[in-house]
Amino acid sequence: MDGDTSREKLQEQIRLQGERVRKLKIEKAEAQQVKDEVAKLLELKAQLGDDPGKGKFVLKCPKGTKDYNPEQMSIREGAFKTIISCFKRHGAETIDTPVFELRETLKGKYGEDSKLIYDLQDQGGELLSLRYDLTVPFARYLAMNKITNIKRYHIAKVYRRDNPAMTRGRFREFYQCDFDIAGQYDAMIPDAECVKLVVEILTKLELGDFVVKVNHRKLLDGMFAACGVPDDKFRTICSSVDKLDKTFWDDVRSEMIDEKKLDPAAADRIGTYVKLKGGLDLIEALLTDEDLKKQKAAVEGLEDLKLLLKYCDLFGILDKVSFDLSLARGLDYYTGVIYEAVLQGFAHNPSAGSDEGECQCRQCGWWWKIRWSGWVFSILESRANSSNVKTRTTDTEVFVVSAHNGLLEARMKLCNELWDADIKTEQSYKKNPKSLSQFQYCESSGIPIAVIIGSSELEKNIVKLRIVETREEVEVPREKMVDEIRSTLARLSQQKTQNNASGS
Amino acid sequence: MDGDTSREKLQEQIRLQGERVRKLKIEKAEAQQVKDEVAKLLELKAQLGDDPGKGKFVLKCPKGTKDYNPEQMSIREGAFKTIISCFKRHGAETIDTPVFELRETLKGKYGEDSKLIYDLQDQGGELLSLRYDLTVPFARYLAMNKITNIKRYHIAKVYRRDNPAMTRGRFREFYQCDFDIAGQYDAMIPDAECVKLVVEILTKLELGDFVVKVNHRKLLDGMFAACGVPDDKFRTICSSVDKLDKTFWDDVRSEMIDEKKLDPAAADRIGTYVKLKGGLDLIEALLTDEDLKKQKAAVEGLEDLKLLLKYCDLFGILDKVSFDLSLARGLDYYTGVIYEAVLQGFAHNPSAGSDEGECQCRQCGWWWKIRWSGWVFSILESRANSSNVKTRTTDTEVFVVSAHNGLLEARMKLCNELWDADIKTEQSYKKNPKSLSQFQYCESSGIPIAVIIGSSELEKNIVKLRIVETREEVEVPREKMVDEIRSTLARLSQQKTQNNASGS
Repeated sequence: MDGDTSREKLQEQIRLQGERVRKLKIEKAEAQQVKDEVAKLLELKAQLGDDPGKGKFVLKCPKGTKDYNPEQMSIREGAFKTIISCFKRHGAETIDTPVFELRETLKGKYGEDSKLIYDLQDQGGELLSLRYDLTVPFARYLAMNKITNIKRYHIAKVYRRDNPAMTRGRFREFYQCDFDIAGQYDAMIPDAECVKLVVEILTKLELGDFVVKVNHRKLLDGMFAACGVPDDKFRTICSSVDKLDKTFWDDVRSEMIDEKKLDPAAADRIGTYVKLKGGLDLIEALLTDEDLKKQKAAVEGLEDLKLLLKYCDLFGILDKVSFDLSLARGLDYYTGVIYEAVLQGFAHNPSAGSDEGECQCRQCGWWWKIRWSGWVFSILESRANSSNVKTRTTDTEVFVVSAHNGLLEARMKLCNELWDADIKTEQSYKKNPKSLSQFQYCESSGIPIAVIIGSSELEKNIVKLRIVETREEVEVPREKMVDEIRSTLARLSQQKTQNNASGS
Repeated sequence: MDGDTSREKLQEQIRLQGERVRKLKIEKAEAQQVKDEVAKLLELKAQLGDDPGKGKFVLKCPKGTKDYNPEQMSIREGAFKTIISCFKRHGAETIDTPVFELRETLKGKYGEDSKLIYDLQDQGGELLSLRYDLTVPFARYLAMNKITNIKRYHIAKVYRRDNPAMTRGRFREFYQCDFDIAGQYDAMIPDAECVKLVVEILTKLELGDFVVKVNHRKLLDGMFAACGVPDDKFRTICSSVDKLDKTFWDDVRSEMIDEKKLDPAAADRIGTYVKLKGGLDLIEALLTDEDLKKQKAAVEGLEDLKLLLKYCDLFGILDKVSFDLSLARGLDYYTGVIYEAVLQGFAHNPSAGSDEGECQCRQCGWWWKIRWSGWVFSILESRANSSNVKTRTTDTEVFVVSAHNGLLEARMKLCNELWDADIKTEQSYKKNPKSLSQFQYCESSGIPIAVIIGSSELEKNIVKLRIVETREEVEVPREKMVDEIRSTLARLSQQKTQNNASGS
């Protein structure tokens, strides 16, 4: 019953399972059967932790984290590639910073959320903590290197000891993808480019219809003043307004009046404003609004927004932009325009509505920021899972198949020829693999072309090319093989593009 | 003298510096002067940590870590791209695991080096540690998902509380780049592909001449037995042999005899073997060696190596492979072939000779591994620094230049046209930038083409294309601009390739 006894039992199980595997191998049993039994053996060994001189494997990721398997990596890399190509189209550089910072560097930067920072144990030397976002490390980098002008993106994981709802795509370790423009520039020029970039990225990611909501810190301040909100209540009333994307106005109104002791008349006046959304017309109308007109901040905010929309028009994205007076996120920090991209159909989805659920942009002093979080991958992943199309996890273009035993060296030469021609090629690592298992591998991993050799092909100095999907086969002289493979790959990829276009 | 007083002093300095900046702006001083003074202001503020409600910025990376600036990122990304394209050419998938693991998962896996593991502070919940390598997380992933067959690479940072010599390119946070083949396969087939991959990568990285040393665990065991080394001294004698790449034989011999109490005769016999290096001839000679012949392990090792070299020949890489009996690294863990790639001219360089200094491959049971570490980047970086060619940090192809004031909207339209045509384009974020500063920016950041507009160009519906390097200019009708830019870029890139080819 004690640990030692159960360990001995496990060791005995492993011994027996090991014998079973050896016996199957000697009997040359079915590959799948051997594989299954080996898997059992490895699992037992893992329970014991019986790697030479090693401890027990705990078969679990830490809470709030996950592994990315090859399918998920394939989706993630595809999304990164798209996003990065957009950043690069706009001339961005990239930097990287360590995963941990001096604890002092992070101290006092996150208010109440500081309790969510992962600290490293004091093992002597400096006190360290894992980065909570990419902004503070970036600010440290700028200050340390005395940089005042930069346009950079940074894609990296950040860490928060939160209690995240992982089913809603929230994690303790998750990616942030920040794009920042730092420098002293003229009004709305970087802002408009940020909105353009967001539109480009969301369009290229093909996530579905979306809109970029815009608002302005100064307009909100002016609006609150115009509605009779006392100065010291701006922040708290602002955070009530921020809930409007998830809550009905009546509930927000009650919170303002009952909890935050706002005069009901002021709340009602706010109510008439925050319902408004539109474009240039709305801005023009508000510029003539008797109450707002008197507020300098409101007028400045509206003039900025007017200019922003004009620039968005020049950038051909006006139809994607919606001026929305209820957008009030994160106003503590931001001094100018705030933007938020919202996918249609996700607007009231809690996973999209979370803090990390949007693409947020904002201007803060001489600093413009776009931030993406993990939700992009969640959406792409769930879409891939729900579609019937298998996500490929390799780029392999050709699998070299031997038609019968005794062809390992011929296969190796062939692979070498293909690798040297930069054709992505695999073969079986078995000396004498079965034909069927080779073809099955091609099909299950989506490899488009099989190059088949047998003794008759070798004699004639040809190879057989098989299109895996259609099973068409052609014989090709060996010296034309590489060219034929290239043109076949080009043709298959063209067909796929056409099918996708006609299918959508 | 106390903290508060010096803080007050700093605040006064900041106030004065702020006034200076404001005054310069009002006076419309030189941009550079304003920039310098703003930088000073930011620096003072950073000292104070006077972000609203925030603490002090400590302007330092944690010990043993560094930021990657855009130049370094550009080099790193280039190297990753090369390495990954080689992995993908061989059909590899990729996975990712969290940066930390349950402390239990890492426990007992690293022997004495366990003290170098970074532990996270116990903040309630699970006990966590930062990953020390990518192998243990991979083993956990395989066991957790009951995977027995996979060919995957994983490029990620690992963490070691070492006292690294950063000047020699060693860090506490550094990249590992692992490629592993797991599965039950026939002898030497995956091994040969690993060697092929290493040769491909080192060739593509253009790091200079290199050789892949190979040896075999069983041969070493058999050799030690043949020399009369007692079984219980194999490990320690092996670790002496391992020093031969950095130490002379005489010193290694003394260590064996004086410290490790080996019979001098045995040491001398080892000495005759470990000097040997060669190819198939040497293997054949050793197979007839009277002492080795009697050792089953030695014969098995030699037969494996013979097969490996035959396969390497089929893969066209025999000239890069050197069978070397002094290669003895890490034999504790490995059961089969070990390989190590060594750059010529770096063989006795301590930075290349460190544990993390080579590309190591080895076979351990049903597991083949290639590992790269940060040294690749160190070499590439130092080469970039010593060459006169500036490393570009952006991919920008075109900069839109306005010849005079008042052209912001025209520039914006032009940029938009170029972005929508997928041409990587930048412009100034100033409303009225100076011509000179626009051209200087093109030159300093290596942008190949400037598209220049002025009122006369707008009237004639043309643009001027300038090749930044040669300052040639051509006028192009607006509707042909995109095509002309594409063909110019193609021409410039071709010229560059030719120049590089003729220059080397």
